[in-house]
Amino acid sequence: HVDWDLSAAEKDGYDWFMRKEIFEQPRAVADALLGRHDGDGLLQLDEVRISEDELREVDKIVIIGCGTANYAGLVAKYAIEHWTRIPCEVELAHEFRYRDPILTRNTLVVAISQSGETADTLMAIRYARQQKARVLAVCNTNGSTIPRESDAVIYTHAGPEIGVASTKGFLTQLIACYLLGLYLAQVRGTKFGDEIAAVVDELAKMPDHVQCLLDSAEQVYELARTYAGTRSVLFLGRHAGFPVALEGALKLKELAYIHAEGFAAGELKHGPIALIEEGLPVFCVMPPRGRDQLHDKMVSAIQEIRARGARTLVLVEEGDEEVTRYADELIRLPVVPTLLQPVVATVPLQLFACELATAMGHDVDQPRNLAKSVTVE
Amino acid sequence: HVDWDLSAAEKDGYDWFMRKEIFEQPRAVADALLGRHDGDGLLQLDEVRISEDELREVDKIVIIGCGTANYAGLVAKYAIEHWTRIPCEVELAHEFRYRDPILTRNTLVVAISQSGETADTLMAIRYARQQKARVLAVCNTNGSTIPRESDAVIYTHAGPEIGVASTKGFLTQLIACYLLGLYLAQVRGTKFGDEIAAVVDELAKMPDHVQCLLDSAEQVYELARTYAGTRSVLFLGRHAGFPVALEGALKLKELAYIHAEGFAAGELKHGPIALIEEGLPVFCVMPPRGRDQLHDKMVSAIQEIRARGARTLVLVEEGDEEVTRYADELIRLPVVPTLLQPVVATVPLQLFACELATAMGHDVDQPRNLAKSVTVE
Repeated sequence: HVDWDLSAAEKDGYDWFMRKEIFEQPRAVADALLGRHDGDGLLQLDEVRISEDELREVDKIVIIGCGTANYAGLVAKYAIEHWTRIPCEVELAHEFRYRDPILTRNTLVVAISQSGETADTLMAIRYARQQKARVLAVCNTNGSTIPRESDAVIYTHAGPEIGVASTKGFLTQLIACYLLGLYLAQVRGTKFGDEIAAVVDELAKMPDHVQCLLDSAEQVYELARTYAGTRSVLFLGRHAGFPVALEGALKLKELAYIHAEGFAAGELKHGPIALIEEGLPVFCVMPPRGRDQLHDKMVSAIQEIRARGARTLVLVEEGDEEVTRYADELIRLPVVPTLLQPVVATVPLQLFACELATAMGHDVDQPRNLAKSVTVE
Repeated sequence: HVDWDLSAAEKDGYDWFMRKEIFEQPRAVADALLGRHDGDGLLQLDEVRISEDELREVDKIVIIGCGTANYAGLVAKYAIEHWTRIPCEVELAHEFRYRDPILTRNTLVVAISQSGETADTLMAIRYARQQKARVLAVCNTNGSTIPRESDAVIYTHAGPEIGVASTKGFLTQLIACYLLGLYLAQVRGTKFGDEIAAVVDELAKMPDHVQCLLDSAEQVYELARTYAGTRSVLFLGRHAGFPVALEGALKLKELAYIHAEGFAAGELKHGPIALIEEGLPVFCVMPPRGRDQLHDKMVSAIQEIRARGARTLVLVEEGDEEVTRYADELIRLPVVPTLLQPVVATVPLQLFACELATAMGHDVDQPRNLAKSVTVE
């Protein structure tokens, strides 16, 4: 159990709540993992009030959320499908509700919402429960409406998030989704205990990895200040790096009010490459070297956009030198397993957005037109 | 059978192949429907070399494509799920191939590619067939590689498409996807003959509807010329209007090289609304009045962005006056069923992109950095 303290709602010397919350992420990620597993890596998610038998009957998972939570859902899909072989769909909560989604008693709906009060997501889970699907919530706010109306909940324990643009909320949602995937794999026997323990060990290293990235924030800040006058920034990723690209772009939209768009790198040639022009900054999330084919394809995408004048800002793991010569700027990431890379790769993009918006003179904690939690549809 | 003639590959008095192809759409859509049904509405798709028994065993459909074809797939998902209740997933072909998608012998993979040579899509179907899934291609080019390597094919019969930005290719892909959905519904008995005949009747009206929209092209052209200096254009839709918004934005990216982005309207409040500022043009695709709740929600989204200074360019069906007072510009659409609206709603956005790019002095048929068919991965 994690206690929240009201005094935590102060800025603690930071200029913005958002920046403070970015720097709280090592602690938030550690708290999200706390008490979730015994020493042997056996997972214990005691807020899951759905029996193991019921979880064995699940034949489809639908993950719903809005904005950042939707991107956490995209990462969750890759992890849960890979670890459990249960098909997962990811849908925007507001779209899900108003079409005629296919749901059965064996569908598990996973609803992701930091506040637990997101109206679109709440309406969607009410609809799902009417259709007799089971609902599991991934939320940050104890006792909020979405967890209360769900069959089960995994709390993210990030502590209060004040900045409108989600940061530690997102990282802890990722952790909760990984835990859910591993728990399903444990219950259904699709991964052995030692395999699960190995992933949990990697998760346990995340707070230190995130701290390392924060310790070299100044490099990213400098980069951000360089681009304070830019009109556009693009973001490219593949596989688990694609949602990272989308999240990086969303942060810039929310805070800097500029054109910022994330693409699956393979999509470039099918249209968006027309946007590439001299000097355009493009963040590229390199897959870990373990993903051989993807890694090579990303290197060639980077070569291509650079040949057309783009400035390539490449997030790449330590020790990977293959891309060095095509990178105008290198941001080093710790070496982590493929599916967990979003936890580390997102951090520099958060720092970039926060600093760029600051340099542009915007109110980072209260971006125009936005509310922290969207409690109307 | 539709004969293609080499002389069709001339511009026929138009300044661009793309504009010529936009104006060929009534004919292309008619050709896509030709010979597909008998007088009683019974569908005949004779290139489908998968037995009816096999189609009855399909328990999941995965639709793959890149760029515009991916958006046709999003529309197909809504129609096929609604008519058949078979769960459909839509994936970018290049992402599908390089993760570990869940496929079985009862999975039907629908591969959409105008050229039939799209390398990413070809690699994806080879992978799917290795995994023993069945593959049905939706293609425009007779005898191309993707149809040859598939278990079945529905040709779109659009005739040769020369302009790099797809127009009649897209509209005929939509028609082919509707036909596939209806055919599956017929084989599996999820729709009665008279119900299928009613939809086919509506499809048969599409060439005239599209012609009406083309007859009032000048209104859209004027609008486009007004915005020749704009830096950004946004596009909003919901349900079947969401892929239309994405397609409208992609056309502008490809041809005008400006920031053009499509959103599900419900997503606005979760981030993108921060981009709205004085004078920003936003296309809004209104759902038909038959979709009561969606219709009302779209009206309030339009009110909200207008209150923040956006210029609202609203595509709305004839006779729908509710949104009139919140629209800075109205583009009237013929009254069609909800799921078929993309066929008509896309046309004005094609005209807009073609004219805006022309006004900006760009080469509409050969946009920078792009190739007509992407035959390398």
